[in-house]
Amino acid sequence: MNPRLTQQIAFLVEADKLKSVVRRTPLVDASRRENSAEHSWHLLLVMMVLREYGARGVDWMRVMEMVAVHDLVEIDAGDVSAYDVDAFAAKAVREEAAAGRIFGLLPPDQQSHFRELWDEFEAHATPEARFANAVDRLQPLLQNAHSGGGSWCGQSLVRAQIVRRMAPIEAAMPDVWPHVLDVIESFCDAGVLRRD
Amino acid sequence: MNPRLTQQIAFLVEADKLKSVVRRTPLVDASRRENSAEHSWHLLLVMMVLREYGARGVDWMRVMEMVAVHDLVEIDAGDVSAYDVDAFAAKAVREEAAAGRIFGLLPPDQQSHFRELWDEFEAHATPEARFANAVDRLQPLLQNAHSGGGSWCGQSLVRAQIVRRMAPIEAAMPDVWPHVLDVIESFCDAGVLRRD
Repeated sequence: MNPRLTQQIAFLVEADKLKSVVRRTPLVDASRRENSAEHSWHLLLVMMVLREYGARGVDWMRVMEMVAVHDLVEIDAGDVSAYDVDAFAAKAVREEAAAGRIFGLLPPDQQSHFRELWDEFEAHATPEARFANAVDRLQPLLQNAHSGGGSWCGQSLVRAQIVRRMAPIEAAMPDVWPHVLDVIESFCDAGVLRRD
Repeated sequence: MNPRLTQQIAFLVEADKLKSVVRRTPLVDASRRENSAEHSWHLLLVMMVLREYGARGVDWMRVMEMVAVHDLVEIDAGDVSAYDVDAFAAKAVREEAAAGRIFGLLPPDQQSHFRELWDEFEAHATPEARFANAVDRLQPLLQNAHSGGGSWCGQSLVRAQIVRRMAPIEAAMPDVWPHVLDVIESFCDAGVLRRD
């Protein structure tokens, strides 16, 4: 087999491990928690369906590519709760090492491309990255909203923490934001989230 | 909430069920069988990494969209082994009904778009559909190759059946085809597949 294809297949086989990284968010039927691979697929659908709420001129192909690769570093670094402050701080160092190893399986040109996509997603600086990050916040909110609270339950979370976490949605999809606030409000009413 | 967004979210919540459709193919570590949602994500990565082997001028955004939606009908119709002749014949009727119901959750314009993507994928007629189908054959082959035979085991499969099933790869990614034949040959040598 040509050495380039050998490297490409080694990367694709390694990527399979993302299916074993379990997230905090449950499936809607609450039968189990979802994994980062199926979560990534769901983000692509969210993007396809809700892109009309995004800014004009966004490069949607770039958003799709970013979404497809954004969680690969979790193969080594694991998934960390956004509300676990200590673990979240150590996350960046572990993910940096993971990006080096995992994208390093690819031929150099593709390694650069994938690394750029991941760096761009993490930096939240381009319209594409802002939309991708908004989708990455909205999908777990929908999972939680439709599974009785999901990963919000039993964490003593305060309304303001969720609103802050969801803020990228307000910036990237302003017309969807009122629905996000409605969901948060209803889980405050239900006692899953505290108001302060 | 505006009625359009209500429909869009209902579709996205329904799509979550694809994570519970279990395929024949195992994860590479053979710990369990993969589901159709994580499989769909994996196809996107395969497309991103191997598109250099495809034809020139392919609309890769279209391929990505097609791959993201291609298995949604399995929420109602289930996953069927490509080598189970009777079940495979009844599949088209069930999938047709499923497409009507599931894509029908979307607003009419998006319903048409998603339906067109799925029809195009099923028809294998455009360069985009041919590449998407090739990727849909190659990913399970890689899963099987790296998990000791995977879904090929215990099915009394003959070499010619696998070669026929994999043929879209030869057409869409001719430079990858010799590797596919090598994999098939090695599983004939190992006694997992019969030569005739």
